[in-house]
Amino acid sequence: MSEMTEVTVMSELMEYVKRVSDATNEALERVLPAESVYPSSIHKLMRYSSFAGGKRVRPCMVMAAYEACGGAFGDEKALKAAAAIEMLHTFSLIHDDLPCMDDDDFRRGKPTAHKAFNEALAVLGGDALCILAFEVLASVGRIDVISEIAVALGTGGMIGGQVVDIESEGQKADMATVEYIHMNKTAALIRASIRCGALLANAPADTLKQLTSYGNNVGLAFQVVDDVLDEESTTETLGKDAGSDAEKGKATWPSVMGIEESKRYAGELIEKAWADIEFLGAKGKILKDLAEYIRVRIS
Amino acid sequence: MSEMTEVTVMSELMEYVKRVSDATNEALERVLPAESVYPSSIHKLMRYSSFAGGKRVRPCMVMAAYEACGGAFGDEKALKAAAAIEMLHTFSLIHDDLPCMDDDDFRRGKPTAHKAFNEALAVLGGDALCILAFEVLASVGRIDVISEIAVALGTGGMIGGQVVDIESEGQKADMATVEYIHMNKTAALIRASIRCGALLANAPADTLKQLTSYGNNVGLAFQVVDDVLDEESTTETLGKDAGSDAEKGKATWPSVMGIEESKRYAGELIEKAWADIEFLGAKGKILKDLAEYIRVRIS
Repeated sequence: MSEMTEVTVMSELMEYVKRVSDATNEALERVLPAESVYPSSIHKLMRYSSFAGGKRVRPCMVMAAYEACGGAFGDEKALKAAAAIEMLHTFSLIHDDLPCMDDDDFRRGKPTAHKAFNEALAVLGGDALCILAFEVLASVGRIDVISEIAVALGTGGMIGGQVVDIESEGQKADMATVEYIHMNKTAALIRASIRCGALLANAPADTLKQLTSYGNNVGLAFQVVDDVLDEESTTETLGKDAGSDAEKGKATWPSVMGIEESKRYAGELIEKAWADIEFLGAKGKILKDLAEYIRVRIS
Repeated sequence: MSEMTEVTVMSELMEYVKRVSDATNEALERVLPAESVYPSSIHKLMRYSSFAGGKRVRPCMVMAAYEACGGAFGDEKALKAAAAIEMLHTFSLIHDDLPCMDDDDFRRGKPTAHKAFNEALAVLGGDALCILAFEVLASVGRIDVISEIAVALGTGGMIGGQVVDIESEGQKADMATVEYIHMNKTAALIRASIRCGALLANAPADTLKQLTSYGNNVGLAFQVVDDVLDEESTTETLGKDAGSDAEKGKATWPSVMGIEESKRYAGELIEKAWADIEFLGAKGKILKDLAEYIRVRIS
């Protein structure tokens, strides 16, 4: 792709991301209790963390998959699922940042929940976002979507990845362990976002299968890129302590295959993701651009 | 009721509690991943806390309401709901015991999860039990039950009660605050247990309404009795630090109305619960005995 075309793709995609982000924020605004609702402190925390400047990657995945499978942009059920998945992502960040876990003071350039409030409220606020997400998902009325997300979050998914991530700290993890951590900690919820969009649009089984593979490839690429950015960026551009993964002896892709090889691997995963959705043709354009967007961050 | 009759009631009820407890344990055995499943540590913790000797009060409520509304003992859907609710109760205990919350070292005579394992794993193990509970509930296939439980757990229910409980420590809470804490922290999930049993048996609206009131009365009585026991018992009989609520300046019923008045209030709540289910006649026997069982603990 020429540089000129790349810029055009990105500006079109950025507009899409902005539209999803705005719609997701409106949905979150509707489902999160107001700060004034008793007990106020926890609702303040839930809103503080939910509106802390996340890029809404997962809502974009839900909506792009929903549209690619014939759904209309902004349909209530897809928006509710997007908002619920974003709340689940926020819940995982709040708990990951706790002193007994990654012990991070900053996230997206702002104090983490337990710093801005306190530890007890951060634990309960994370719990409450997780529970509210299932309440919102129940209001969509699709058992298959609830099941999909619960499985992706559990010990065979996101939580399992986080357990191994923490237990591998300072252990010089091998490649299989790094892959396990990121397939579960990061890719599982991204894959579930894609699959939920497709399920809500009642996509046929073979489409779901291809999108599942796309979700795994994009999800893994996302984490490889994140690790590279953590290694290469300054604290200022990243909004959190740069190089903090390496300092903590975290199992990262650069730590097992080096920076250059990590970049090459991310590119390879994106190519695979593109191949997965080639059958969608023009309907897959946003999904294709989303994958490219992930790669461009480190190119 | 004469002393002799009371003993008979209790031995019949104890047999029922044992049957539900055994069936719930078998259901938990089926849905909880084996300890050997990777990552092993979190599955060990989830099983450690799930089989730590809980009395399975909430599963009894699910099953008794299910039977009272025409369901058959031990039906798969009722058992799954009972196991899920017990996992949610365990999740709340694990997080409540954390150092940043109630900081308890013992629960039911055994070291708490963060003591037996570590804090990070206790946070994640609680999260995983909450998520697995929703996965199990999804397998029951009833959106109304999922919604019921999510609402009972959230900031308008259990979590909200826990927030106010923590924020009221050492504050000399008034009666309205004590009532808010316990209606939400304890009664909300007990009421939801009753309602889920009734929903699964497709109970009509007026039955649900009566059982909701029963659930509130029994749920509140349960907490009043728990507070009285905490004041009166020794550490040995209680399995946790006796009088620890008072030491922490917790908002308890004895702290706002004294021990004797608390006992009288518990009795009054049980009488109300009985009146709520009088219309069930013989079908409400177990629910009646369960309410009596709660009162007898302090009589």
